[in-house]
Amino acid sequence: MLVIGERINATRRTIRDAVESRNIDAIVHEAKIQMEMGADYLDVNCGTVSATEEPEVMQWLVQGLEAAGPFPLCIDSANPDALSAGLAACQGRTIINSTSGETERFEKVLPLIAEYDADVVALCMDDQGIPPDSAAAERVGRNLVWRLLDAGIAADRIYLDPLVRSVATSPEAVPGTLELMQSLAKTFGGLHFISGLSNVSFGLPERRHLNRAYVVMSIFGGLDAVIIDPLDEALGALMFAAEALMNRDRFCMKYIGAYNQGKLAAR
Amino acid sequence: MLVIGERINATRRTIRDAVESRNIDAIVHEAKIQMEMGADYLDVNCGTVSATEEPEVMQWLVQGLEAAGPFPLCIDSANPDALSAGLAACQGRTIINSTSGETERFEKVLPLIAEYDADVVALCMDDQGIPPDSAAAERVGRNLVWRLLDAGIAADRIYLDPLVRSVATSPEAVPGTLELMQSLAKTFGGLHFISGLSNVSFGLPERRHLNRAYVVMSIFGGLDAVIIDPLDEALGALMFAAEALMNRDRFCMKYIGAYNQGKLAAR
Repeated sequence: MLVIGERINATRRTIRDAVESRNIDAIVHEAKIQMEMGADYLDVNCGTVSATEEPEVMQWLVQGLEAAGPFPLCIDSANPDALSAGLAACQGRTIINSTSGETERFEKVLPLIAEYDADVVALCMDDQGIPPDSAAAERVGRNLVWRLLDAGIAADRIYLDPLVRSVATSPEAVPGTLELMQSLAKTFGGLHFISGLSNVSFGLPERRHLNRAYVVMSIFGGLDAVIIDPLDEALGALMFAAEALMNRDRFCMKYIGAYNQGKLAAR
Repeated sequence: MLVIGERINATRRTIRDAVESRNIDAIVHEAKIQMEMGADYLDVNCGTVSATEEPEVMQWLVQGLEAAGPFPLCIDSANPDALSAGLAACQGRTIINSTSGETERFEKVLPLIAEYDADVVALCMDDQGIPPDSAAAERVGRNLVWRLLDAGIAADRIYLDPLVRSVATSPEAVPGTLELMQSLAKTFGGLHFISGLSNVSFGLPERRHLNRAYVVMSIFGGLDAVIIDPLDEALGALMFAAEALMNRDRFCMKYIGAYNQGKLAAR
């Protein structure tokens, strides 16, 4: 399971304040605690600043993190100029978050993937927006992956995000998303599947339970990467458990290792 | 989701002491707290006493509970005489826990199902013991359900327990069990699937995480009944969440209801 830590995101008050006051120590602190809790990559998102400022702020964030790290980074923006500025400052392994089937976004992000030899998160949507149902999602997802493959991006460098809808408004969202992953996995060997957790529970109370159950079910469906808060110990323990149950953890060695490191203490 | 509370079981010290001292108040307390936490049925198991004593102890337990209740009971014993004694003392809806494909057990429990118009838990095993792999489990499970149907027991009165093996020793146990449920559900419309939680995590530390992830995945696979501790609030919250995700909870009304009742407070 590839874990991308989500905490360096300017929608969080701590990060927004650190960005505004250019306090890199606060950012590096968030990086270190996430790595200590098992993050494989750190998402970096400063999309709350203006579009004109975002490239410079992204560059500052990445340079500061690289100077204190290095850390494996996931450069997260809907703004290709901000992605470009962040990628130029990266020194090591990098994931671009994200491209999609939207024409302009696809065309602007594609050269960045090649130039920086980065992996890429691909959002299952196109110029018509997020597909309204499973059939449309399957069509949009397949088309997007084919276009990336045609452009020379290997399947195992693509993390498709099925963009699960909220169960509050789309009761079939989760079974449909799991079917989508299983169907695409059969066609595209090596393709990864990634998900964040905010959408599935949107509009419902005590969302952490829905988010955790969604991750567990999605691991059954083939999810192999998540964008989460690595400090959520209950979620982390469930993920170790789900991988053991799905025979993705030979002899349960990762589960037992997590236990030995005190990572399964959540009640 | 049918929830059978597991706490009235003489393998627990509190219950064993209450049974030995014939302290029915302690038993009734365990019944009430489980019903308050949402149990639909209460399992009653006194299998730690000797086989000759067990029928009398079971009768005492059931009579005491019926006098203080009534409570919907799940009479749990491998001893047909104890089942019979418990069932005779029951006043309301009852589940027999359990029969199996073992010749003697099947033949002795079958008349009790008819006599008491009870539902029944059917363990997926036969005279050769617990099936060693998925193919054998499918054969044993199908044969067992056919035999019960042939005897006139309707499919929706049967709770098949696939007897999941521990992932510590059987890495394919969980995917195999989910496939078994999905396969049998196609053949036997209305058949229920039930599981306890002790087996899947046997031999591993901090078992609650494995147990919880197993329930969530199994709900995806079609599990619709569990034998659990209803006082495990984190498990309960995940079960509400999993049912909402699987579109088994129209408009998420049960999830929102659980929230309003304070049942989703687990961190």
